[in-house]
Amino acid sequence: MSRYYTFNAADAVEYARQFAGVKDPQSLVTADEIGDGNLNLVFKIRDTAGVSRVIVKQALPYVRCVGESWPLTLDRARIEAETLLVHGQFCPQHTVNILHHDAELAVMVQEDLSDHLIWRSELLKGKYYPQAASQLGEYLAQSLFHTSDFYQNAQYKKAEVSRFINPELCQITEDLFFTDPYIVHERNHFDALLQPEVDALRADRPLLLAVAALKQRFLSHAEALLHGDIHSGSIFVAEGKLKAIDAEFGFYGPMGFDLGTAMGNLLLNYCGLPGLVATREAADGREQRLQDLRDLWLSFRERFLQLAADKTQDPALAIAGYAEYFLQQVWHDAVGFCGSELIRRTIGFAHVADLDSIADAAMRADCQRHALSLGQWLIITAPQIDDIEALIARIRQNG
Amino acid sequence: MSRYYTFNAADAVEYARQFAGVKDPQSLVTADEIGDGNLNLVFKIRDTAGVSRVIVKQALPYVRCVGESWPLTLDRARIEAETLLVHGQFCPQHTVNILHHDAELAVMVQEDLSDHLIWRSELLKGKYYPQAASQLGEYLAQSLFHTSDFYQNAQYKKAEVSRFINPELCQITEDLFFTDPYIVHERNHFDALLQPEVDALRADRPLLLAVAALKQRFLSHAEALLHGDIHSGSIFVAEGKLKAIDAEFGFYGPMGFDLGTAMGNLLLNYCGLPGLVATREAADGREQRLQDLRDLWLSFRERFLQLAADKTQDPALAIAGYAEYFLQQVWHDAVGFCGSELIRRTIGFAHVADLDSIADAAMRADCQRHALSLGQWLIITAPQIDDIEALIARIRQNG
Repeated sequence: MSRYYTFNAADAVEYARQFAGVKDPQSLVTADEIGDGNLNLVFKIRDTAGVSRVIVKQALPYVRCVGESWPLTLDRARIEAETLLVHGQFCPQHTVNILHHDAELAVMVQEDLSDHLIWRSELLKGKYYPQAASQLGEYLAQSLFHTSDFYQNAQYKKAEVSRFINPELCQITEDLFFTDPYIVHERNHFDALLQPEVDALRADRPLLLAVAALKQRFLSHAEALLHGDIHSGSIFVAEGKLKAIDAEFGFYGPMGFDLGTAMGNLLLNYCGLPGLVATREAADGREQRLQDLRDLWLSFRERFLQLAADKTQDPALAIAGYAEYFLQQVWHDAVGFCGSELIRRTIGFAHVADLDSIADAAMRADCQRHALSLGQWLIITAPQIDDIEALIARIRQNG
Repeated sequence: MSRYYTFNAADAVEYARQFAGVKDPQSLVTADEIGDGNLNLVFKIRDTAGVSRVIVKQALPYVRCVGESWPLTLDRARIEAETLLVHGQFCPQHTVNILHHDAELAVMVQEDLSDHLIWRSELLKGKYYPQAASQLGEYLAQSLFHTSDFYQNAQYKKAEVSRFINPELCQITEDLFFTDPYIVHERNHFDALLQPEVDALRADRPLLLAVAALKQRFLSHAEALLHGDIHSGSIFVAEGKLKAIDAEFGFYGPMGFDLGTAMGNLLLNYCGLPGLVATREAADGREQRLQDLRDLWLSFRERFLQLAADKTQDPALAIAGYAEYFLQQVWHDAVGFCGSELIRRTIGFAHVADLDSIADAAMRADCQRHALSLGQWLIITAPQIDDIEALIARIRQNG
């Protein structure tokens, strides 16, 4: 029988005392449940001085924001912890540190990041972290390179692919990214003002063909161990620091998916800024997002190429020029997946505050239309957008 | 402890009596070991009248043609039987029937196909089976479509990907197809007459880049449950009949690999024919091989598109036109993998009689050079060869 039970605050404190590895376990005394995500309980464990010391995170056997009617595997807690441990092995500076995990209880103890803030919240306030995007590029380069065919022994990688098979969480992405937004489905929601654009999008055959191709790549291209959900709400930042968290969607998939998700969330903020902050500030913020986009891609690319030059293990893939060729495919994939993130976050199940928190309805609809049209354009023209400068130039052109 | 032991003839007879499901088991009396492959024991079980009734096939824990110094997993017998059972579910008419299998003994009992002959042997003699290529296309369309994202539920497919992870056998392909032929390696062998061509090939950077891309797709694109080794020596034919056997290389990989392997073996015969039969007969045979190539691709494509139209389960992939788009990628992959089969069968570890049995050394070298240059051209120009007619026209042009 499973030992699983849902933690209350006292359970979380007791668990942290046992497994957090702090030198004064009895000083841990309170737990505040701070989970604001869709899927889990998150306890902040404080000591007698009220200082937050560690995080205890437990998966619930259903989708929290929907309720017990949408059951969801507890195995995602194991996958999350094991994904973060693998990524942490190669990029400890940008991966949340997992101190302990227990698959049966679906629980893990993580380092406390109270001195960090969620990147999305900061972006909403117009706060700029000039190093964050390149640090995210570093995280993606290290985690994706070291779990790819360039670096992992082929037999070892196959065992890892099997260990990280994540059917239920992948299905959420398969449905919410690539299927629901393009059909009438009860999980979608959007303002009635957008109905004409949504109808046009669902009738756009070249778009639907390109989305099918993206879905098929998501379903079958096991290129590297992805984070699987690396949006600005899964990233903690502080001055000069960045940490990825929340990897329950981890699996072996196409690298472009992680890059596209990250890029898409920068562009969602870009689209929302005119509705979020004053005009002058919005213009500055948009330039920062385009710079973030450039920093993200170029730091990812540069580090990946350096790692490929220094550490590629497969002799056939080590040939000069191959990593560049491969990254060009990843780039085109990323642009397409980025477009699908823009669309699904605007008219699908899970929205973002970058758009939905805009108070004025007309302005909000304008920003959402922008996100939709940008997403549509990115998906369709992805194979023709050759590099980051071409992408940025075209985004500027489209306003 | 494993129950595995190596069968002798008496063991094979006893096993067939128990598990072949014949209604007169005691009539099974003799076993002839007829294995001529690289990996297994194969017993033909005869009855008291001398009639061959079933086949007992057992995997050895090493590569038979090399010896005990090259150990090889017995799990390949389970994978072979399970692959054939899956393929047989969707294409029983062209898949050898598995009557029983036992993973621990690494043994299976198969239907007897004594009224069939190995297709390669028939091709070597210039014997034409006009229906074989389109039947092979039917086999590949049925087996690949029904194990792909078009048809398999995404969660089910992920479990199947895991069930068919086949690291050791895949590594053989990874090494022998994509690495060894392009470097100096003790597993390679070829006539010294070919050294200049081999040197040129290994210095051909565009070729090596394209081979790296093929290898990466082989390593990471889990599109469908492949046969994994579908050359003309893994195919039995009779008048109007065809059966695929020997699926120990089965795994979820890129569809183009199975198609390319099959196409490559038709072209190896095409290249060898001038050295195998008289001039007039060789010219006829070459036309038949080109017709085979056309029949194979077109029957595969037509059946796959029909299945996609009738039976696609994934709503996003069901959009009109997507299957055509997808098959165009499979086509380009197939042309590339076809080229790599031509090269590795000419200068790598495992050769084919279509070339190596040519008696005259100069003629043999000419045919081998043809295979090499054709392979090289196919790999490099695969993305520009748009369809089967363009391919055939160019093969004719190259002589």
